[in-house]
Amino acid sequence: MTDVSGLSIGILGGTGDQGKGLARRFALAGLKVVIGSRRAERAREAAESIGAGATGADNAVVAAECDLVIVAVPYDGHKALLESLATQLAGKIVVDCVNPLGFDKQGAYALPVEEGSAAQQAAAVLPESRVVAAFHHVSAVVLMDPAVEKVDLDVLVLGDDREATDTVQALADLIPGVRGVYGGRLRNAFQVEALTANIISVNRRYKAHAGIRVTDI
Amino acid sequence: MTDVSGLSIGILGGTGDQGKGLARRFALAGLKVVIGSRRAERAREAAESIGAGATGADNAVVAAECDLVIVAVPYDGHKALLESLATQLAGKIVVDCVNPLGFDKQGAYALPVEEGSAAQQAAAVLPESRVVAAFHHVSAVVLMDPAVEKVDLDVLVLGDDREATDTVQALADLIPGVRGVYGGRLRNAFQVEALTANIISVNRRYKAHAGIRVTDI
Repeated sequence: MTDVSGLSIGILGGTGDQGKGLARRFALAGLKVVIGSRRAERAREAAESIGAGATGADNAVVAAECDLVIVAVPYDGHKALLESLATQLAGKIVVDCVNPLGFDKQGAYALPVEEGSAAQQAAAVLPESRVVAAFHHVSAVVLMDPAVEKVDLDVLVLGDDREATDTVQALADLIPGVRGVYGGRLRNAFQVEALTANIISVNRRYKAHAGIRVTDI
Repeated sequence: MTDVSGLSIGILGGTGDQGKGLARRFALAGLKVVIGSRRAERAREAAESIGAGATGADNAVVAAECDLVIVAVPYDGHKALLESLATQLAGKIVVDCVNPLGFDKQGAYALPVEEGSAAQQAAAVLPESRVVAAFHHVSAVVLMDPAVEKVDLDVLVLGDDREATDTVQALADLIPGVRGVYGGRLRNAFQVEALTANIISVNRRYKAHAGIRVTDI
């Protein structure tokens, strides 16, 4: 089992719901967590709102100083932000949890991505980083809810670097109830990102915060 | 709850592993099941090998005579077969469970589909049918295994026709252990089909016959 207890975790776009929810759970697990935002002030406010010892800084500082960096920004702006941080992110594990989705009256749908998926887009603009795709299906509401002690879902972890995916699986395991499950290579990330549209459909139909579990493992 | 006990189920491509597995489980549930193949003789042999009262016929007869028709053919040939059966399938619920996948040394990967997904391709060539996408992730090995009494997975059921998706959910529910779960509109079928590539990756890594469960519903 990979030991991730000593890692500092940066979360780009950590002021959004998904980023804040992950920041909260990792901080509660005892990790050093730094929330990133374009404006350091907003990042610090978000960190204070979470508590549990999380701090905030601007995205460039987070990218430069943290051991492992989670990308939780909206898809719009994803590529430009990562391009601007390629130097700081070189050599690091970068965990992309971006879901390229559109919304209309019929609900959510997957957006096409030229590179194949958001994760592959990250890998294309960060050739020196070790890109892993994970945390696509976590419900921000559930992550933020103090009443939810155990989060009932598996996190599919995708990537081409075994040590990096092992690390991110161990990171997912730190959230009570969650299991990090290897889910394939980066070339199969699109459907995992896009499946979030289906989960949104499930949530609407069943009035739920649905997640996915993998059976027989 | 939709009552499906009186439906006759046809399975195009029912001599393949996935089709045979579904035929077996539906026949065991007491439904009238007819396996289809290009050659009636092969279909009858497959039906006999399953037992449980399933019968066999050529694909055109199955399409014409059964109430609900499952499409379990290889993706290669999928479009041509459905085009040839459009008249027979008019007005019927057609359940597409085809996964357009390619394979190479690194494993399985999703193939692009011009219409968006195999299910949307079916809908495009069968404008008079009620196309539903379902049963993508069921393991043929598990469906055929007499030792497996309960199949541990949910079947995501996608479609734009509520009565049709309700019917297919009820059909999935007939397999012990399985739950039919509404999974969104047909436009979100690609990622459910493609996710089979990830499940194959999971199976390789964990030596499993993995399935998917939806939590919080």
